Amino acid sequence: MEQPSIKRRPSRPVRVGRVTIGGGAPVSVQGMAKTYTADAEATAAQVQSLAAAGAELVRLAVPNRQDTAALRRIVPQSPVPIVADVHFNPDRALEAIDAGAAKIRLNPGNISDDRQVRRIIAAAAGAGVAIRVGVNEGSVVDRTDRARHAAESARPLDELMVAKLGEYVEVFRQERFENLVLSAKSHDAFTTIAACREIARRWNYPIHLGVTHSGTPTTGAIRSAAALGALLSEGIGDTIRVSYAGDPLREVSAALELLYSLRLRARVGAELIACPTCGRARMDVVRLAEEVHAALADLDAPITVAVMGCVVNGPGEAANADVAICAGEGKAVLYRKGKPIGTVDGPEIVAAVVAEARRVAANGG
Amino acid sequence: MEQPSIKRRPSRPVRVGRVTIGGGAPVSVQGMAKTYTADAEATAAQVQSLAAAGAELVRLAVPNRQDTAALRRIVPQSPVPIVADVHFNPDRALEAIDAGAAKIRLNPGNISDDRQVRRIIAAAAGAGVAIRVGVNEGSVVDRTDRARHAAESARPLDELMVAKLGEYVEVFRQERFENLVLSAKSHDAFTTIAACREIARRWNYPIHLGVTHSGTPTTGAIRSAAALGALLSEGIGDTIRVSYAGDPLREVSAALELLYSLRLRARVGAELIACPTCGRARMDVVRLAEEVHAALADLDAPITVAVMGCVVNGPGEAANADVAICAGEGKAVLYRKGKPIGTVDGPEIVAAVVAEARRVAANGG
Repeated sequence: MEQPSIKRRPSRPVRVGRVTIGGGAPVSVQGMAKTYTADAEATAAQVQSLAAAGAELVRLAVPNRQDTAALRRIVPQSPVPIVADVHFNPDRALEAIDAGAAKIRLNPGNISDDRQVRRIIAAAAGAGVAIRVGVNEGSVVDRTDRARHAAESARPLDELMVAKLGEYVEVFRQERFENLVLSAKSHDAFTTIAACREIARRWNYPIHLGVTHSGTPTTGAIRSAAALGALLSEGIGDTIRVSYAGDPLREVSAALELLYSLRLRARVGAELIACPTCGRARMDVVRLAEEVHAALADLDAPITVAVMGCVVNGPGEAANADVAICAGEGKAVLYRKGKPIGTVDGPEIVAAVVAEARRVAANGG
Repeated sequence: MEQPSIKRRPSRPVRVGRVTIGGGAPVSVQGMAKTYTADAEATAAQVQSLAAAGAELVRLAVPNRQDTAALRRIVPQSPVPIVADVHFNPDRALEAIDAGAAKIRLNPGNISDDRQVRRIIAAAAGAGVAIRVGVNEGSVVDRTDRARHAAESARPLDELMVAKLGEYVEVFRQERFENLVLSAKSHDAFTTIAACREIARRWNYPIHLGVTHSGTPTTGAIRSAAALGALLSEGIGDTIRVSYAGDPLREVSAALELLYSLRLRARVGAELIACPTCGRARMDVVRLAEEVHAALADLDAPITVAVMGCVVNGPGEAANADVAICAGEGKAVLYRKGKPIGTVDGPEIVAAVVAEARRVAANGG
């Protein structure tokens, strides 16, 4: 079968350690540690976990000198490039570059002194370090000048974020620094989409996508996937982070799921398809699906497993899946590559599906 | 501040009871009961819960004659129009129309006999009932004819779904039946997006959006929001269902969250903004956010509440939120409409935020 795919927006390639962002490179997944960076041991361990879960870049907050000092110990242990998230204090950027960060994130809302920015640019250029200029709606309105504040507050936040980015990008242009990634994040999908579409129109730098302080995992997954799904489906976005108030490893899984679903990445491991269940279901499909999902989490072959509750879509899904189960009253039919291969009693369903999936995976999918 | 919004694709209005789909009507949220429809009492209760959670239409599966019989008792008790999901047996469609369903869903993959379709169309036209023609990737490939199966399997699923829809729509055109809604669902965002974009290009009927058997709540929310977010942000989509293997009320909340985030609907109740937490956070923001979220679930005033873990985006979010808390070391600063109004000790934070939010809500936001 033909496999059409999303046509990506062309952008300039930016090197971040051994990862390339933009320039046709695959969309990369970024994680962020939620440890105190100064606790080098805990942070290095979380970086390892994030990388194992699929993060190709990991970002660390470095609010204090102790945090950048810890970077020296964390960077050499990390399997992926480390990004230092810098706010307020330009010294942290210089220290992070010196400590081996592969990329620095600067927030124009928090570091605005032109001379300081040029110092950071010079240091990054010297060390071959990339810079992300990332605006957030929360730090884009000037609160130090009353007149400016009033004028800015009257503009839509997406316009304001892009304008702020424009002033900053001009400094990088003057300094001929091109190892640049841009981002603009809002807590809502609409503003994030509007801002990133405008960035894509104006510049050819790669774009980092994310939704900021998106809430709990429930609202966060929806807001993030809506914004990132819309932009990625238009070809916009070169590296992504899904973020919400919750487990950082689940943020990485969510980001990967998004890329799989948009065919921006070939799935690694089993893909579980489950019907949403309805008044036709004759068994607890939710429980079955979750048990199968959990039991196959370690599988690294790209096979599809369908858990279906009835005969409406069941046989169709079974035809497309490597292994499928269509649950009926008290028992279920097991399929392999679309062919029924047996009937399984209720209590044995999960074990039978898992065994069959492992058999198919062992035979190369 | 200006409030730009998504420009919707023009479509023909379709009446489903007192709900209009398309023709510029707001995007409506559809729920689906997961009870056995034949159990009229349990189903009527779940329809009530779904409507209370925000579902404006509720769909019920009607595989058996007992299910359509139960519709007669469910429909009069329902606060929202009932949609009957019909597969395989055309009699179920006729019975459901007779029992008072406001809309029938037909799957071209499962009911293909031309004469039967015309009978259903005539009955629906006579009763003023709308019809959704909804194809799913799982039931789109002909498995009865080997040659046709081989030819169909070679085509991308999005093309195949739209082709199948086209054959069906032609019958409705011949019968001059225009009370029609179209849909095409895949389990992946890419195929769903491609198919719906093509439907939007070809016809001016309103479009129902959804991702089918999208997996567990974790993967389901991501796949659904990615596909629906992409389409809605392009103006495509007139009614939506988020579905996954899980609680049907959470499907409705997820659909609403998606519409809020894209500004397709004004939020009802408190909007919680929370930072994702990072190495800067000096308190358990996740726990705080979840406790505040739960404590304000009943609020129906459209106020924003921000729970922030540090000073980077905290004051900015506080400026945009009605009530905000910026957590520091052991204590937090409480903001009202951007102004700090006090300092709160760790254990009192949730109570203080909730009390302040209720005060603001009582004063009209």
